[in-house]
Amino acid sequence: MAAPLVAQFDELIANQGYRTRSEAIRDLIRERLVQREWERGDENVAGTLTLIYDHRVRGLTDRLTMAQHEHIGLIVATLHVHLDEHNCLEVLAMKGRASTLTQVSDRLLSSRGVKHGKLVLTSTGESLV
Amino acid sequence: MAAPLVAQFDELIANQGYRTRSEAIRDLIRERLVQREWERGDENVAGTLTLIYDHRVRGLTDRLTMAQHEHIGLIVATLHVHLDEHNCLEVLAMKGRASTLTQVSDRLLSSRGVKHGKLVLTSTGESLV
Amino acid sequence: MAAPLVAQFDELIANQGYRTRSEAIRDLIRERLVQREWERGDENVAGTLTLIYDHRVRGLTDRLTMAQHEHIGLIVATLHVHLDEHNCLEVLAMKGRASTLTQVSDRLLSSRGVKHGKLVLTSTGESLV
Amino acid sequence: MAAPLVAQFDELIANQGYRTRSEAIRDLIRERLVQREWERGDENVAGTLTLIYDHRVRGLTDRLTMAQHEHIGLIVATLHVHLDEHNCLEVLAMKGRASTLTQVSDRLLSSRGVKHGKLVLTSTGESLV
Repeated sequence: MAAPLVAQFDELIANQGYRTRSEAIRDLIRERLVQREWERGDENVAGTLTLIYDHRVRGLTDRLTMAQHEHIGLIVATLHVHLDEHNCLEVLAMKGRASTLTQVSDRLLSSRGVKHGKLVLTSTGESLV
Repeated sequence: MAAPLVAQFDELIANQGYRTRSEAIRDLIRERLVQREWERGDENVAGTLTLIYDHRVRGLTDRLTMAQHEHIGLIVATLHVHLDEHNCLEVLAMKGRASTLTQVSDRLLSSRGVKHGKLVLTSTGESLV
Repeated sequence: MAAPLVAQFDELIANQGYRTRSEAIRDLIRERLVQREWERGDENVAGTLTLIYDHRVRGLTDRLTMAQHEHIGLIVATLHVHLDEHNCLEVLAMKGRASTLTQVSDRLLSSRGVKHGKLVLTSTGESLV
Repeated sequence: MAAPLVAQFDELIANQGYRTRSEAIRDLIRERLVQREWERGDENVAGTLTLIYDHRVRGLTDRLTMAQHEHIGLIVATLHVHLDEHNCLEVLAMKGRASTLTQVSDRLLSSRGVKHGKLVLTSTGESLV
């Protein structure tokens, strides 16, 4: 690993209260595994999918809308903000099985013209008390 | 005027507390005139435009998105609800000059494939105290 | 009816293509009756309710949220725009029986602190082809 | 590091196409550092903040609305979905300096009654071409 990367990481984790680097790495790995397992699970969750795209890409808006209508049980509502003349921020509010939400999100994120995006999953709440 | 129409109207306005039919008609006319004048005015207002459309109409979603991006100063955000496999409910939250909002709304409402819609204008609030 | 009101109305309806004043008045009345009947009907409709309110009114935001959660079957999603430091624009996207939507809307519109608002009802689309 | 954790991680990264474990760990660390640096930066970004909360917590809805109105330049619009009788999903669409968005988000996320949430930052788009 490059030395400056290590130095920065050591500073970050010291600020977060870790005593050793291996402890911090273990937590990074655990976090990633938990996330992964959860995204593939059967639990009923709520989630939001944030997408950034350029609406000028031919047919993209049509394709995104069509893909969303195929999952009208999952996608509760979509908020669209016109960032500038070309770029759109779209957030989908979703409810359903974690694995299905992940699948639909992966499909939307990989559409040609989507520049960036991220899925946030969360329990529907009751179990979070 | 057809007799049943008159009878129904008389019943409605009696329930609303009007004493005479001409009083109720005067209020209908006034309301329409005020609405008209206001929609063409220079006042800064907030408003929502509700649109119902079929996303399968070729290019409609693209055209609506494009038209909205041309007015990014006006259109704050858009909420999209997938009503069923084909039909969309879209609500635009807008801020700006009443006459401009009316113009943009008329253009969106008259797009081929838009089935129904309505503009609701309101003062931005402060003057409504 | 006051003379200037009549003159303005005559000008408006001439622009809209009416030949006589009574024809225009008949249409105003019919429109109002149709609207009224529809709002009280059993048909499944979609609708949006636009609300303008001052969030500083003690407990108002809490009361509005609570009222909305009592009807989670009806209210699909809510878009909130912060107009200025004090005033909120809120649009509720709703689905359900017309009469129930009208009832819930009337209750929200009459909440102390809500300055203005309007319900827009529409068919859920299929019948609008 | 516990053996089963290592085994799972090795399986995950093999599926993702990594050849060595240290390569994968390096990427985890880099990702975290980039994220961190970016969240504290001056760049103009767009972002979404997802919040899950119980609206019954006394005054919470009022407090969240008030905090949002203090930053009306930052928060473009908010989408609210009523998950069940008690739980709310709220997504804020935001634009502004990354460090300010992070600060406002941290404050909202730490409000008593907010169960879970996550900030997603993204470039406003142009630089993502």
